[in-house]
Amino acid sequence: MPYVNIRVAGTLSKEQKAEISAGVTEVITRVANKPANSVLIFIDELPHENIASAGQLLQPPAK
Amino acid sequence: MPYVNIRVAGTLSKEQKAEISAGVTEVITRVANKPANSVLIFIDELPHENIASAGQLLQPPAK
Amino acid sequence: MPYVNIRVAGTLSKEQKAEISAGVTEVITRVANKPANSVLIFIDELPHENIASAGQLLQPPAK
Amino acid sequence: MPYVNIRVAGTLSKEQKAEISAGVTEVITRVANKPANSVLIFIDELPHENIASAGQLLQPPAK
Amino acid sequence: MPYVNIRVAGTLSKEQKAEISAGVTEVITRVANKPANSVLIFIDELPHENIASAGQLLQPPAK
Amino acid sequence: MPYVNIRVAGTLSKEQKAEISAGVTEVITRVANKPANSVLIFIDELPHENIASAGQLLQPPAK
Repeated sequence: MPYVNIRVAGTLSKEQKAEISAGVTEVITRVANKPANSVLIFIDELPHENIASAGQLLQPPAK
Repeated sequence: MPYVNIRVAGTLSKEQKAEISAGVTEVITRVANKPANSVLIFIDELPHENIASAGQLLQPPAK
Repeated sequence: MPYVNIRVAGTLSKEQKAEISAGVTEVITRVANKPANSVLIFIDELPHENIASAGQLLQPPAK
Repeated sequence: MPYVNIRVAGTLSKEQKAEISAGVTEVITRVANKPANSVLIFIDELPHENIASAGQLLQPPAK
Repeated sequence: MPYVNIRVAGTLSKEQKAEISAGVTEVITRVANKPANSVLIFIDELPHENIASAGQLLQPPAK
Repeated sequence: MPYVNIRVAGTLSKEQKAEISAGVTEVITRVANKPANSVLIFIDELPHENIASAGQLLQPPAK
């Protein structure tokens, strides 16, 4: 506790996941006065075609 | 905002995902008076063996 | 199964919840070929100040 | 209804998923007086590097 | 880690929440070989009218 | 997109919610190269007795 779920389209590198986790944990522990060791983060990476905005599936980025 | 999460057993085709996303967005924007461009939908496709009903794992459909 | 979670800012009337539930269930059962009686929907109504877009909390609608 | 979501790091065998589903359904139906056939469970298996505790990504278990 | 989310219609007593939490944690730690102190459970209690099955809102229990 | 769900025990002030939202959005947009206006955050505040760690309900903080 606290629990954080981050859901993104596409994939993140392990370095991005580590940096996001460290940064989000720092923000929550500092602002909400929660001990850092209580923050649990789950990151979900979904294919672009599994996410829709405004009723339209996301397009994968051009290569 | 609004956020919608749809979780199904097995897989959906891209066409099914597009049609569900368009239909669900239409319903929510019409009934709840939310702008369509604010509706965000995430679709999760899980293996049948990761879902249980009445304490029993779902069986995959016969081929 | 399927499971649907709809999260909105502010409140919906019981009539809106009923109409959204009926409509979303119709879309999913028709497009994904799932039996209607298997569709489970949970609607979460959150205060505007518990939702942020672009890093800013949502403003409640003017009265 | 009720809906249960279980999220773990790494993978579970089909036998573990079946046993967890049966056990969790038994607990909820017994304690909360809900009919067993109404309990719906979704199990998410995430890579260790998609979960962080105390701001650090989980390490996969040594082989 | 693991994270468990239990969502029910109506309310549970504190005793029911405690007994469900103890029971679910016991099942997961025993079957999945996870340390008990790593299991985090969040229980959401929703009004019956915020849950729909088969396209119909749940009815609250008769008093 | 991305979608972030933050779940805490107890309540946060509006100022804390604003600061957490701004900070988390900054981290994700900077590290994952996502446009800030695409980050959607939902904050859930739960009673302590609805959260369990290690099979025990959380105790509310002493006054």
